[in-house]
Amino acid sequence: MEAIVLKEKGQLPALIEHPDPRPSGPADAIVEVLACSLNHRDLWILKGKYPGVQPPVVLGSDLVGRWNGKRVVVQPGLNWGSNPEVQGKDYHILGVPGDGAFADKVLVPSENVFEAPVHLTNEQAAALPLAGITAYRVLFTKCGIKPGEKILVTGAGGGVALTCIQFALAAGLEVWVTSGSDEKIERAIDLGAAGGVNYRHAEWDRKLNTLAGKFNVIIDSAGGDGFQRLMKLAAPAARIGIYGGGQGTIRGISPQMLFWKQLKIFGSTMGTNGEFGKMLEFVATHGILPVVDSVWKKTQFQKAFDRMEQGRQFGKIVLQWA
Amino acid sequence: MEAIVLKEKGQLPALIEHPDPRPSGPADAIVEVLACSLNHRDLWILKGKYPGVQPPVVLGSDLVGRWNGKRVVVQPGLNWGSNPEVQGKDYHILGVPGDGAFADKVLVPSENVFEAPVHLTNEQAAALPLAGITAYRVLFTKCGIKPGEKILVTGAGGGVALTCIQFALAAGLEVWVTSGSDEKIERAIDLGAAGGVNYRHAEWDRKLNTLAGKFNVIIDSAGGDGFQRLMKLAAPAARIGIYGGGQGTIRGISPQMLFWKQLKIFGSTMGTNGEFGKMLEFVATHGILPVVDSVWKKTQFQKAFDRMEQGRQFGKIVLQWA
Repeated sequence: MEAIVLKEKGQLPALIEHPDPRPSGPADAIVEVLACSLNHRDLWILKGKYPGVQPPVVLGSDLVGRWNGKRVVVQPGLNWGSNPEVQGKDYHILGVPGDGAFADKVLVPSENVFEAPVHLTNEQAAALPLAGITAYRVLFTKCGIKPGEKILVTGAGGGVALTCIQFALAAGLEVWVTSGSDEKIERAIDLGAAGGVNYRHAEWDRKLNTLAGKFNVIIDSAGGDGFQRLMKLAAPAARIGIYGGGQGTIRGISPQMLFWKQLKIFGSTMGTNGEFGKMLEFVATHGILPVVDSVWKKTQFQKAFDRMEQGRQFGKIVLQWA
Repeated sequence: MEAIVLKEKGQLPALIEHPDPRPSGPADAIVEVLACSLNHRDLWILKGKYPGVQPPVVLGSDLVGRWNGKRVVVQPGLNWGSNPEVQGKDYHILGVPGDGAFADKVLVPSENVFEAPVHLTNEQAAALPLAGITAYRVLFTKCGIKPGEKILVTGAGGGVALTCIQFALAAGLEVWVTSGSDEKIERAIDLGAAGGVNYRHAEWDRKLNTLAGKFNVIIDSAGGDGFQRLMKLAAPAARIGIYGGGQGTIRGISPQMLFWKQLKIFGSTMGTNGEFGKMLEFVATHGILPVVDSVWKKTQFQKAFDRMEQGRQFGKIVLQWA
């Protein structure tokens, strides 16, 4: 079959022939890929910044495909284990280690295969799985979002952040955003956000406080030095969900602010198969359309990676496969 | 009446005559004080490190007394408000602002007055309220402790930390402690703790990991630079409760560790009247005896404060009043 393969660490990946996957038992499914989408994770793997990469390996975690005559999406978190609170030792994400989604055929446990929401195009369905499950768990399972609450989502533009914005809007929250790009803030407002501020502005937190007041829920993927400003923007009893750490180590948390405001901070990554099923239901019920930034042919995958590297995307970058 | 009064900021308090409290309506209770206990809060007020102090003011938050022919304790958190998640704007703790517990008579809302557990001496009952409500909320309401879990309580020796140790033991957890004093660790083991390490040891976290492994629950009142070591000692899906910040700003939280381990960090302070009632039930059911470090006559209050200042206490420092 054809696949985008990282042949050696430090090399660029190539679209080449690769052995077909072989099912090892009846619990395995071979999904024929229709479309895939990129994640930052794929870039980190290319750059050798992700642990456990053992080339040669097929890249990719997100796909829509065909299996048993149905159009399906794959929950990319494999072998979560028995504890819904946290993934177990055998857990890994499709694509590392083991072959991933950017191929004609993908081998996954059949328990991870779900019928794709019928209202989505192939491109939209390919954009949903990883971002959808991450957003669903951090918003609903961890932060317990409720209608009428005010939520701040940082870094609007990324796949998970945009999905958080869409899910929170569908759940009846008032949504505010931050971004390093005024254009992305405008596009988030087009999606339904109440407003946002550019975090390149020196006093972005004060500006946001003036515009929006304090937040019941904050969803962050940056961490770093900006996190203490998020703490100040938190309303009493606020929940802060963190699913990424692009800006590195968090400094400057005031314990007094933490306990006097009765704040809760939740780390969250991916989600269970049960949550994945509920996420798909939520997407279907609310007719949510994942935001697709751009669609590329599989032969153009390097341009797709370049676009992600430049951070210019608003939504998911999709590869048409079949 | 006689009371320990801070007459001016920066001065030492004095045991002097002070006007009797006057109830302003039927919702007010005048409790005749039998014994009181000290909190760090009282020291911070003396030192001007607590906001909102308006002398002259009677110090103190913890007491056992008599009201309507019954022996009672007072929930020191006043006017919590309607949201169990967080105290409202009118909330304050007995003693600042407004007159506190170190007096012949104390005025409090009658809804804050609870019958004292019958199995406690006056000294033990005086030691319970503030530490008990703080420990109960952070352990049960916030961290949801369960039998068989492994818990780490930092700073064994303080009133809240010792109460956390006792409550967690009664709830069927395996309890470990840290302290700056080997003697206090030994005394925590006498109470039932499995063991502990001295945080003055450079590699206390490694030592503790070797002895005990990872923890399902961590209760901290320090914050500061040591907090990142607590994060490393956290098991997957662990809950970390923080009710104090003696070591100041928390630095060095890894977002990756937070989300990959699915950790939860809960700030917690004091608790509702409902939680106070449940706490008293828990103490009665399990026959818990609050740890009294030492008992002083009210005329010796300055020595009692000195002992707290020196940090030598193990458990609560009590003033006999009547």
